[in-house]
Amino acid sequence: MPPISFPSDPPAPLRLGVCYYPEQWPKARWREDARAMRALGLGTVRIAEFAWSRMEPAPGQFDWAWLDEAIDVLAGEGLSVVLGTPTAAPPQWLVEAHPDVLPVGADGRVKPFGARRHYCFSSPSLAEATRRIVTAMARRYGGHPAVVAWQTDNEYGCHDTTLSYSPAALAAFRRWLRARYETVERMNEAWGTAFWGLQFLSFEQVGFPVGQPTSPLPAHALDFRRFASDEVVRYNRLQVELIRAHAPGRPVLHNFMGLFAEFDHHACGADLDIAAWDSYPLGHVDTAATFLTEAERQQWARTGHPDLTAFHHDLYRGIGRGRMWVMEQQAGPVNWADWNALPLPGMVRAWTWEAFAHGAELVSYFRWRQLPFGQEQMHSGLNRPDGALDDGGREAAQVGAEIGRLLAAGDAASLAMRPAAVALVMDYPSLWMAQIQPQGKDMAGFGPMLAYYGALRRLGLDVDIVAPDASLAGYALVVLPGTLHLDEALVERLRASTAVVVAGPRTGSKTDRLAIAEPLPPGPLREWLAVRVRAVESMRPGRTLAIDAGEHGHGVGVQWRDLIELDAGNAAGAQEVRVLARYEDGAPAWLARGRFHLHAGHVDADLLLRWVDAAAREAGLSPLAPEALAPGLRLRRRGQWLFAIHRGPQPAVVPVPQGAIPLLGGATLPPGGVGIWHLSD
Amino acid sequence: MPPISFPSDPPAPLRLGVCYYPEQWPKARWREDARAMRALGLGTVRIAEFAWSRMEPAPGQFDWAWLDEAIDVLAGEGLSVVLGTPTAAPPQWLVEAHPDVLPVGADGRVKPFGARRHYCFSSPSLAEATRRIVTAMARRYGGHPAVVAWQTDNEYGCHDTTLSYSPAALAAFRRWLRARYETVERMNEAWGTAFWGLQFLSFEQVGFPVGQPTSPLPAHALDFRRFASDEVVRYNRLQVELIRAHAPGRPVLHNFMGLFAEFDHHACGADLDIAAWDSYPLGHVDTAATFLTEAERQQWARTGHPDLTAFHHDLYRGIGRGRMWVMEQQAGPVNWADWNALPLPGMVRAWTWEAFAHGAELVSYFRWRQLPFGQEQMHSGLNRPDGALDDGGREAAQVGAEIGRLLAAGDAASLAMRPAAVALVMDYPSLWMAQIQPQGKDMAGFGPMLAYYGALRRLGLDVDIVAPDASLAGYALVVLPGTLHLDEALVERLRASTAVVVAGPRTGSKTDRLAIAEPLPPGPLREWLAVRVRAVESMRPGRTLAIDAGEHGHGVGVQWRDLIELDAGNAAGAQEVRVLARYEDGAPAWLARGRFHLHAGHVDADLLLRWVDAAAREAGLSPLAPEALAPGLRLRRRGQWLFAIHRGPQPAVVPVPQGAIPLLGGATLPPGGVGIWHLSD
Amino acid sequence: MPPISFPSDPPAPLRLGVCYYPEQWPKARWREDARAMRALGLGTVRIAEFAWSRMEPAPGQFDWAWLDEAIDVLAGEGLSVVLGTPTAAPPQWLVEAHPDVLPVGADGRVKPFGARRHYCFSSPSLAEATRRIVTAMARRYGGHPAVVAWQTDNEYGCHDTTLSYSPAALAAFRRWLRARYETVERMNEAWGTAFWGLQFLSFEQVGFPVGQPTSPLPAHALDFRRFASDEVVRYNRLQVELIRAHAPGRPVLHNFMGLFAEFDHHACGADLDIAAWDSYPLGHVDTAATFLTEAERQQWARTGHPDLTAFHHDLYRGIGRGRMWVMEQQAGPVNWADWNALPLPGMVRAWTWEAFAHGAELVSYFRWRQLPFGQEQMHSGLNRPDGALDDGGREAAQVGAEIGRLLAAGDAASLAMRPAAVALVMDYPSLWMAQIQPQGKDMAGFGPMLAYYGALRRLGLDVDIVAPDASLAGYALVVLPGTLHLDEALVERLRASTAVVVAGPRTGSKTDRLAIAEPLPPGPLREWLAVRVRAVESMRPGRTLAIDAGEHGHGVGVQWRDLIELDAGNAAGAQEVRVLARYEDGAPAWLARGRFHLHAGHVDADLLLRWVDAAAREAGLSPLAPEALAPGLRLRRRGQWLFAIHRGPQPAVVPVPQGAIPLLGGATLPPGGVGIWHLSD
Repeated sequence: MPPISFPSDPPAPLRLGVCYYPEQWPKARWREDARAMRALGLGTVRIAEFAWSRMEPAPGQFDWAWLDEAIDVLAGEGLSVVLGTPTAAPPQWLVEAHPDVLPVGADGRVKPFGARRHYCFSSPSLAEATRRIVTAMARRYGGHPAVVAWQTDNEYGCHDTTLSYSPAALAAFRRWLRARYETVERMNEAWGTAFWGLQFLSFEQVGFPVGQPTSPLPAHALDFRRFASDEVVRYNRLQVELIRAHAPGRPVLHNFMGLFAEFDHHACGADLDIAAWDSYPLGHVDTAATFLTEAERQQWARTGHPDLTAFHHDLYRGIGRGRMWVMEQQAGPVNWADWNALPLPGMVRAWTWEAFAHGAELVSYFRWRQLPFGQEQMHSGLNRPDGALDDGGREAAQVGAEIGRLLAAGDAASLAMRPAAVALVMDYPSLWMAQIQPQGKDMAGFGPMLAYYGALRRLGLDVDIVAPDASLAGYALVVLPGTLHLDEALVERLRASTAVVVAGPRTGSKTDRLAIAEPLPPGPLREWLAVRVRAVESMRPGRTLAIDAGEHGHGVGVQWRDLIELDAGNAAGAQEVRVLARYEDGAPAWLARGRFHLHAGHVDADLLLRWVDAAAREAGLSPLAPEALAPGLRLRRRGQWLFAIHRGPQPAVVPVPQGAIPLLGGATLPPGGVGIWHLSD
Repeated sequence: MPPISFPSDPPAPLRLGVCYYPEQWPKARWREDARAMRALGLGTVRIAEFAWSRMEPAPGQFDWAWLDEAIDVLAGEGLSVVLGTPTAAPPQWLVEAHPDVLPVGADGRVKPFGARRHYCFSSPSLAEATRRIVTAMARRYGGHPAVVAWQTDNEYGCHDTTLSYSPAALAAFRRWLRARYETVERMNEAWGTAFWGLQFLSFEQVGFPVGQPTSPLPAHALDFRRFASDEVVRYNRLQVELIRAHAPGRPVLHNFMGLFAEFDHHACGADLDIAAWDSYPLGHVDTAATFLTEAERQQWARTGHPDLTAFHHDLYRGIGRGRMWVMEQQAGPVNWADWNALPLPGMVRAWTWEAFAHGAELVSYFRWRQLPFGQEQMHSGLNRPDGALDDGGREAAQVGAEIGRLLAAGDAASLAMRPAAVALVMDYPSLWMAQIQPQGKDMAGFGPMLAYYGALRRLGLDVDIVAPDASLAGYALVVLPGTLHLDEALVERLRASTAVVVAGPRTGSKTDRLAIAEPLPPGPLREWLAVRVRAVESMRPGRTLAIDAGEHGHGVGVQWRDLIELDAGNAAGAQEVRVLARYEDGAPAWLARGRFHLHAGHVDADLLLRWVDAAAREAGLSPLAPEALAPGLRLRRRGQWLFAIHRGPQPAVVPVPQGAIPLLGGATLPPGGVGIWHLSD
Repeated sequence: MPPISFPSDPPAPLRLGVCYYPEQWPKARWREDARAMRALGLGTVRIAEFAWSRMEPAPGQFDWAWLDEAIDVLAGEGLSVVLGTPTAAPPQWLVEAHPDVLPVGADGRVKPFGARRHYCFSSPSLAEATRRIVTAMARRYGGHPAVVAWQTDNEYGCHDTTLSYSPAALAAFRRWLRARYETVERMNEAWGTAFWGLQFLSFEQVGFPVGQPTSPLPAHALDFRRFASDEVVRYNRLQVELIRAHAPGRPVLHNFMGLFAEFDHHACGADLDIAAWDSYPLGHVDTAATFLTEAERQQWARTGHPDLTAFHHDLYRGIGRGRMWVMEQQAGPVNWADWNALPLPGMVRAWTWEAFAHGAELVSYFRWRQLPFGQEQMHSGLNRPDGALDDGGREAAQVGAEIGRLLAAGDAASLAMRPAAVALVMDYPSLWMAQIQPQGKDMAGFGPMLAYYGALRRLGLDVDIVAPDASLAGYALVVLPGTLHLDEALVERLRASTAVVVAGPRTGSKTDRLAIAEPLPPGPLREWLAVRVRAVESMRPGRTLAIDAGEHGHGVGVQWRDLIELDAGNAAGAQEVRVLARYEDGAPAWLARGRFHLHAGHVDADLLLRWVDAAAREAGLSPLAPEALAPGLRLRRRGQWLFAIHRGPQPAVVPVPQGAIPLLGGATLPPGGVGIWHLSD
């Protein structure tokens, strides 16, 4: 479906918003809060998620009065409202009446009521109660002129809740398997149960892939991950359909999370109009980004990592087919990381501009005012618990004013995103495969994605992050950063394109059943590349192999390498393979045939930068920063504008293109600085 | 109630004792053991705890013969007896007949019989059986002239047994909540269930604050901690009352543990006549003191940490309202730390004198003889398994002789403890709050307490550790080392005093419901201090911030800081605030208004020493060691005596006050050395 | 029983084989596979373990057709077959019909079907089903001329499955206790239940030694380990007896694992004809050998540790009373370590020759061809998934050719193993004792065994590893590397021998009930040595104590020391004690009386080498490398042949004895090199 425009609040290209919980504050305060939001330059307010017990205090008995009033107060001050369905917080009475709502952990223990996300996606009682509350809510507010968009639930999967091991989930998993395989023989064949004599005699005998003396069949584990992902998608679709039925013309979105891949976001996003996400740059660096070294965590403690946030903007812009919101923007210290730093002064502003630079239509701060009680009492907001404006609030106001300056200098059309020249492929099932069979203890996760993304960004290149089934038309450079499974259709699209292709280690190494690609990796690329991966090696942290890349520098291999041989069965093709770098033992580290580059292993960041640079030049691109941007500096174009965000500890010189007209900041940016230029083209 | 004097054994100021288990040794050995104890200078023997199955081998059937005989043998050699109730070791038959006696872990699994402390404080069957055995025991021995004191149970809470998740505990928790809040609405209000829609409809729906997908409501968690603490207090009181009913005039005590705060020891101590504790200096350094660095653990492996043991002496002397015993004194290597070092030669003697210096009335070694079997077979005692005297035994004998020398030089009155000039406030619920909401992963525990205590002690200052509701009259300096919750009454007492007050970071930051103090921290101190904590920041280990304290030196901030602003609403007050040190970004690190000093963050130990020194001088105190004592050297006054204990690796010069007359040791102490001087005043 | 010779395939001294899974490959491939095996020089093929669900697809319904055909195809190509019973993989239908087959973890949770080893050794249903399948299999193939040996099950205890906490295991444990102690009073006495009042009133009240608030009685824990070990032995014996009944003349073996001691392998081996083991040098270094430092793991990542593999060859040769096979030989990267390195080129060949050097009769590679699906899809074999020969396969072929050269130069008799001059005692229960009561966190495991073994091997000495009840006749040097329990019979054999004896710390420190040896350690050695261990000390990693050993060098003590005093009650003996090294505080670190050397603690590897060297010389041995072999170089004699294997990073010079005639390699070996010489004697 095409994007839906806001009925009452046409989409400006650069909008600010905030998350607000009227049910947590005295009514007397609502109006002054609304006025203060408006005064600060905020136009959109997200409310109501988590308020199920207030909307439906007893089964089937609804209390809308407070919400009617809250919306009216906000609307009365000229604010648009994004309504969140409250299903992430099932009420106590629902759990009491229907204990099957509760999720079950991998240890077999029920996770009780008392926090949030205490539900199992497969619970029939949950589905029924969801249908009731979402329908009632959508009926009541679907046509409200101030309600400009809907958010389903909140952060699906947060707190390790994608996977549930409940009886309901087991029954659903078995139905899912039956639907997928029809006969148990086909399932046995697909799973390879010939190994260890693991034949199942019926679908009813299949259990969860957990708790066995050692790891279960990889295909069993993968199917469970697929099933669980489908359950999230199905549950989200249920909500989307109910909302659409009663709230025509309002876009529906979900607020996804950072560094989170437990379900297929492309599949979920396909049912949404906008992909929103919750951006917590410091929390991610401190706790979630396990692939960072301790030194990196220290270095970026107060700014966030230079690529991590932008990566998600690009990822979710792709998932939203061009429409991306930041639904929750960190506005100060959070409460949930291991240690919670204070943002460097200016960073809330810089994060906001970075989001806009990467195409965000809206940046909505979390939250209006720090709540002095409850689990998140140490989570700051735009305002302090004593009601005073906090640093983040002041920076938000500054952005509001700066937006005005920008829109005075250029119209909305000047901010229209253009496709990047570079596409990076993101495949969720490949991440599950790496988790199920890592082969090296640190091989699972976002690390490889970020390594390639970071190399591209340090060169000053803009990147689109695309699904494996996305069109590749128009891209000059396509990067597959270790996409374990490549389907034939993607290979076809790659061949049909004229792009230079760069593939990381493990690319194409697995079938969709998590078996080794036949006859050997890189599987469907074998013909094209005329090579085979004859063996692989994973390396403990600290083990390195020297690499000589000739004119493209020297460096070290780390973590993983594919041992590559030319395909003896394809002598003609093999003859065309150029070996561009070798390991100390002579094995190829980087090779290419035609416009396809294959990296045989992970290498240090500076060496990867040079290899990516070479591929970019081969693709006809002229990176803004061929020698790499100053540490912590990043650039992004949006329409006719160039944005620079600087996180490094030292002032940095921006390689401003000739003819660019400065709007904000100078050619030398301080730590935390933002620069904006109007481009001549 | 006033302290009770011993009927048959009037309290000498410096008494030695030992823990003995007659039931583990052949009767034939009892008399020779008793004689050897006497010969060694030991006067008091603790027995019988853990012997429930020997006293009551079947339900209601008592076997007192062996215990009668054991007591008589000890008494016959002139030894006093401390009788321990045996409830820490419920017999197998009790557990078999009443499985509800068993505690349940946070994982929902029953902890079975087979070790010790296998009981749930909330079990009705336990209460009934306790009533029976304690009554029977107290009736039989309450009037025995040799039984001079009673110990309840043994080390409440050891092995993570304060919290039990049994059905009995759940029922009791719900009753406790009903008694506290009367209506569920009040509970919802107090807990802040408006957050995440966590309203409860009845007390019967409240569960344990454990196992939820993410953390439960902080107030829910805190109330469970309070409830569990109350259960310990209630169970102890049951025993105390039964003993008092049948053993008039005998003091009742419990042997508490080191570095342990899972229940409110002030509340428990209020029902006791003496606070005893079990002192294991090496075990604490190796395993329990998680706030020590690896280097510190190495450095103090054979001596124990210079402040850790003394801290507990001062703490428990306060809890015992002046009466403190060391019920178990480490006498050689123990078995329970991760690694178990040999004490440096002389340390058993030094630990004993240190206990006396801090006011111990009795030091009782654990144990008489190492038992060659059972869980503690590698736990040494005064004697080896082969019956020979061990190093610890020889050092105990030396202390016995030295006590004689001291008592020859000065009477008991010369040893009467005097109040210290410095009070350090210890608040157990504040520790629970920090555990529930640490905000920085390493922010919970005894670390801040020890940091301030250590600074004071390195200056040569004596310290009283007091409860939040203790009188502060007479103290020149009061230290609040990060007391999260301050009640108004304490603030009133502080204001009513003339003491200089030093408060660490986070002081006054929380209400008693574990919410942020209103309108902002430091909550009830706001008026006085004319500042607000506008934000907080926790820092990963390794992150530091330079601090400039002018004449009070330079250093670094670590771990935590409160970002402080002057209170705009209190301009007059704000004008009086002196900023005494600043962080590198200009934020105040140390400030004062009048006699109140506020430290805005944790700093390195040397810088903290200088800040505490400044406050002490402002309070009119003259620290014995203004430039800090030599590493590992500590001093303590008791009455007219000065004691020096030295743990450092190099000989240390004691800053002996003029006119002091040496009794033991010289002005230069070797590692492990002890010095005693009679003071002129 | 005497060794049984192969009926159809007389034992050559140096045979190669392979593991093969016909049920995982199309029948069409079997014959070409068999031919390729033969062509490669492989003579023996192990098949059928894990194929239970294929042999008995439904209860009592057997399908032998495929296995008949597979055996015939192999036999048709002249290959011998080792048949494995398939009990490590009970079929899904068995588990469904008899859930008691499933094992239960220490957390009380059933481990479900879906991987392998999902059975409890104590399950009666398992026993019945085992009897049926093993009987049927043995009846069908017991007389087959090509089936030359039988393997019971697969890797008993793998994946932490020795211990099961099922109801069946509990019932069996109670029966075992009743059989051992007859009356509960005797059990109470043996366990020392006087400690903590832990008396049991009946065997029916005894539970598992797990889950208690703190550690259970050591004797309780030890008896459970003994029981569990006996269950493995009993289950293996059941299979052995069924096989022997129907397959007369065929040796029966089991494939044990490396670094695994959860049951008594001597007891299990006593029922077997051959002890086989599965040798994975790289996996062991990366993951299993927890006593290695990170630097050592890096250093030996691609070669395996120089002593770890040889240690197991010597261990299992002893367990097999001279007959040892390598049933699974790593042939390339594996999938199960934390990181999985590529073997250094040549290592598969070197590992094979190392196995032969240490007496292996057969080296059987795992596996014929890498399987592209299932849990072990990343486990390489001799052939790649695409059918091409892999590096390991080429090296195996090379070994095959080299075997030909050797057998051309010397007959089978020239390869007959001779007893070594040095015996190292391995006692499984002592390892359990160290695990139950480590006293220092890193004190349990194979570390001490390997330290002594490594010192001997670095000197160029050959070692036999013997059971505590083995004859010691003929050994010049006997090493007890910290054997916690020494029974009197062993002490008698030691005294009756003329060997120099070297004992490590903790030797003789425990009774067989896991109590301290009376009157003190070293228990039964006290008379002989005239010393007592008066105390012990364990030391955190990083804590060291300087040691001065005079002419035998300087070094440091680490990890553990026994504080030793001369036995005052044995003045005459004590006078004869020589103190050969002392700690910095004067305590003896190494002492000897007559031909008995006692090491009082663990010391650095170079110092230990010198001490062992001194003892070897005292024993009249002339180590080949008195100054230690080059790093990574090791030697082994077999019959008239000398083998050298080199793992070091630099070429190494072999100290070739005079007159030795080179067959393979030169006096200077490259990394991964192998040298073979015919000796003149």
